[in-house]
Amino acid sequence: MVRIAVVHDEKLLRSALVQLLRSDDTLDVSSHCLDADGPELSAALPADVCVVDGECLTGPQDAGAGRLRARYGDRLVVLATAKRPGVLRRAFDGGALGLVDKNAPAHRLITAVHTVARGERFLDETLTVALLKGAEMPLTTRELGVLTLASQGAPIAEIAARLHLSRGTVRNYMATAVRKVGARNRVDAIRIVQSAGWT
Amino acid sequence: MVRIAVVHDEKLLRSALVQLLRSDDTLDVSSHCLDADGPELSAALPADVCVVDGECLTGPQDAGAGRLRARYGDRLVVLATAKRPGVLRRAFDGGALGLVDKNAPAHRLITAVHTVARGERFLDETLTVALLKGAEMPLTTRELGVLTLASQGAPIAEIAARLHLSRGTVRNYMATAVRKVGARNRVDAIRIVQSAGWT
Repeated sequence: MVRIAVVHDEKLLRSALVQLLRSDDTLDVSSHCLDADGPELSAALPADVCVVDGECLTGPQDAGAGRLRARYGDRLVVLATAKRPGVLRRAFDGGALGLVDKNAPAHRLITAVHTVARGERFLDETLTVALLKGAEMPLTTRELGVLTLASQGAPIAEIAARLHLSRGTVRNYMATAVRKVGARNRVDAIRIVQSAGWT
Repeated sequence: MVRIAVVHDEKLLRSALVQLLRSDDTLDVSSHCLDADGPELSAALPADVCVVDGECLTGPQDAGAGRLRARYGDRLVVLATAKRPGVLRRAFDGGALGLVDKNAPAHRLITAVHTVARGERFLDETLTVALLKGAEMPLTTRELGVLTLASQGAPIAEIAARLHLSRGTVRNYMATAVRKVGARNRVDAIRIVQSAGWT
């Protein structure tokens, strides 16, 4: 038996994924979430492979990604889409062995789980191009930081104060970020960066 | 037998939902998506109830929502979360009989499907407060329209041209929208409106 832990913050979809994996008799499946609403990860049984929705690894729950890695190492199967190269890239850089396209047929997930359980890499080919695109993220950490704060509604003066920069420098970072991502203005740059899953 | 059509744009989660519903022997389940990637809705078999992810009914696929309504009338079970009152409200206003919390246990979805098949309303109580909040959306259609175009990166001049308004009027709508949603600036207003699922 291969022991699987399923992590998804939406209970209904978590249950659905569990049911799908249980269609394979050789898998022993339990389920958890990263926030406080449901069965906590800390109470999770030991597992050989962890299946997690890539969207649960973004944003303020980034700490959750660290906890998953600490617990399961590289035995992670991350569900993602080609539309969000940032999410993909983060999963890949974080060392997850498995990357499964959310648009793949169900049997691909089962194959992925067995592959990763053997310690081998599984990468859906439909995700490869998006992964390479994600590698081309043109912004520096500073530029991305400025844009992220702006996307949360912070005005220039506040961004400057929080990052210990002058207002002029913040404006420069912002202008460079807008140019680099090919945006028309700040709002457009935020939209591009968010939809790619970079913030 | 109750015939169910499952609509979700991500194939893997669509399969998982289908499997979950098939755990009830009295349900006859088929699956479809609203975009061009998978089994098209137009080729769908007749069904008594349609289960659809609320996120598939937002954004540019709003036309899809119309197609679902034309086909299934009020026999829709929409999956949603309390975090997105706009998505909830749109489903409710669109006449969907069923609203199921994505954080509900799996048996709630099965109960919902049978309830809606009988032509009765099913509303998860965890969604009620969010639904009422969604009713309080303070923006007019015009203000929301201006904000939506801005969120896509359109500058003032372009918004004015597309909505046949003067630039000053667009700026006024924008300022009113920022004030009404309690935002700090335009970017903040866009963030608030998007995260509530209003665009």
